[in-house]
Amino acid sequence: MSTFSAQKIELDHGSGGAASHQLITKLFLPMFDNPFLRQMDDSAQLTIGNSRIAFSTDTFVVSPIFFPGGNIGDLAIHGTVNDIAMSGARPLYLSVGMIIEEGFSMDSLNIILQSMKKAAQIANVQIVTGDTKVMPSNKLDGIAINTAGIGIIESDCQISANRAQAGDKILLSGTIADHGITILTHRDNLMIKGNIQSDTAPLNDLVLKLIAACKDIHVLRDPTRGGITSVLNEIAHQSGVEIEIQEDAVPIKPQVSACCELLGLDPFSIANEGKLIAIVPESSVEKALSVMHKHPLATHAAVIGSVVSDTNSVVYVKTPIGGKRFLHLPVGDQMPRIC
Amino acid sequence: MSTFSAQKIELDHGSGGAASHQLITKLFLPMFDNPFLRQMDDSAQLTIGNSRIAFSTDTFVVSPIFFPGGNIGDLAIHGTVNDIAMSGARPLYLSVGMIIEEGFSMDSLNIILQSMKKAAQIANVQIVTGDTKVMPSNKLDGIAINTAGIGIIESDCQISANRAQAGDKILLSGTIADHGITILTHRDNLMIKGNIQSDTAPLNDLVLKLIAACKDIHVLRDPTRGGITSVLNEIAHQSGVEIEIQEDAVPIKPQVSACCELLGLDPFSIANEGKLIAIVPESSVEKALSVMHKHPLATHAAVIGSVVSDTNSVVYVKTPIGGKRFLHLPVGDQMPRIC
Repeated sequence: MSTFSAQKIELDHGSGGAASHQLITKLFLPMFDNPFLRQMDDSAQLTIGNSRIAFSTDTFVVSPIFFPGGNIGDLAIHGTVNDIAMSGARPLYLSVGMIIEEGFSMDSLNIILQSMKKAAQIANVQIVTGDTKVMPSNKLDGIAINTAGIGIIESDCQISANRAQAGDKILLSGTIADHGITILTHRDNLMIKGNIQSDTAPLNDLVLKLIAACKDIHVLRDPTRGGITSVLNEIAHQSGVEIEIQEDAVPIKPQVSACCELLGLDPFSIANEGKLIAIVPESSVEKALSVMHKHPLATHAAVIGSVVSDTNSVVYVKTPIGGKRFLHLPVGDQMPRIC
Repeated sequence: MSTFSAQKIELDHGSGGAASHQLITKLFLPMFDNPFLRQMDDSAQLTIGNSRIAFSTDTFVVSPIFFPGGNIGDLAIHGTVNDIAMSGARPLYLSVGMIIEEGFSMDSLNIILQSMKKAAQIANVQIVTGDTKVMPSNKLDGIAINTAGIGIIESDCQISANRAQAGDKILLSGTIADHGITILTHRDNLMIKGNIQSDTAPLNDLVLKLIAACKDIHVLRDPTRGGITSVLNEIAHQSGVEIEIQEDAVPIKPQVSACCELLGLDPFSIANEGKLIAIVPESSVEKALSVMHKHPLATHAAVIGSVVSDTNSVVYVKTPIGGKRFLHLPVGDQMPRIC
């Protein structure tokens, strides 16, 4: 019997926060239980023949579908490419499952498909299979795109959210909250102007260069829904470790920080779509940072904290004035349909 | 530049008929062009390491979500299992991407998940990765489920819709139109009663037994959206062959046939979710039929026609009174949201 007690699905169940976590761990996981799913990584790591592969899926329902820095099309390619890359795999093949509302503009569809094509070319993946369904008008808001993908793990790396250990350092590849704040400020006519754009980007090239330079990466995760707060909490929980983050070490653009203050939002819980967190032994920090700083997608990479003990599953932030606050998994998202 | 001229997406673009075919061949295919996609089979056949694999995706938006014989959950498992099986592969791993409307009943979700669990167990596949998004109420009608899946091709079979050739026989595993007519009669309070239920079922076990018994199967396809009309036309087109079907050899339940007459629908164009068409050399017909007749999902299997020449890409039906009518790809579906 399920121990999940909600009566109805709520928006928070799709947020990447505590409500999502509950839905997954109390309903989906016990239902479909198997060792691959139990791993709880961004992609399942499987063995087929003599190959280690990574398999992942993600559905995109972002609103608005067009936003500064990208659209639902390239976002859908990057999202699955990145989930596959986070297990150290080279993404190879994608499937695309579209649901489109009757009456959807063919011009918009064309722009979305062009973006998918370009994103797939840049990420060096091929779209090899697909499916399209059409919903009658008013039964779906515009378009939803699912991508699933397969990658091959070519090195002997063992990367998983359960491998963080005391002494490890936590690296972040760049500024936080760019994607989420872009979406929020372009929705519902909030009329906030500023030079802000989504960071949506494929991280597979960066990951392969990181793996080539340092063989002992313990964890890779991309902090999408729920931001770095959700990802750090998931890692702390899955590895059973205590994580300390230096607040002033976390890169954030001044205009994004200003928007968060204005809207009363915590940037640590806001989605990113082109950033990764890498957890590595202290001895590998220099090599990893050097690779990141040379890569166009990680020029602002920084060490933002460390794994301080193996006894507790918590995340806390040290503030510049010496304070310490716990970073709890947010219950829901600060807004739905971020990705 | 795309040669696809529609201004807006219409319901017919999701039907599996001529409008779908146009959307795929004139927009999606040229956009994402590669040899895997060009194959136009139900799944992409790929090589990873020393393994031949099949990779497929399908999204399910069926309305109503619960119907006699199944629900959207087991339908979503069977759909992708079957698409993978049609390349001769053994399905192994599935991903599940759900979009759920805010306010959706948790009891309904539980029933759907239980059905998915049971269907996966029966088909001997594991759900290894997933994603859940929630849409605000009224932005999606209930629930949509995408499944993608990976299978392994263990024999040296070469099964593809482009391999039909003159002299081949066309086998159908059982009665047609059961799924589509079930959905139609349970929608919009049509109030048609009768002992009709969906044929939704996993065909992978039947396929593996067929392959074990006859190594030279040329084509396997499951006639879902657009029915046997769409699938036979696709095969005729992809193989460049002329197909002749004996109308009275096609199995159909009397109550399904009666419904089709009442509603003015052509059962040849109605969706099936647990049937397959196998095209084999005449020398293999006896072995293939014998395997089918011993299998619980194919007790009504029959030879329904043959490939009569390699010079033309057409499908026609011979009627019992000696007439001959061409079976053209329907423009759209006879109703949307069948699967």
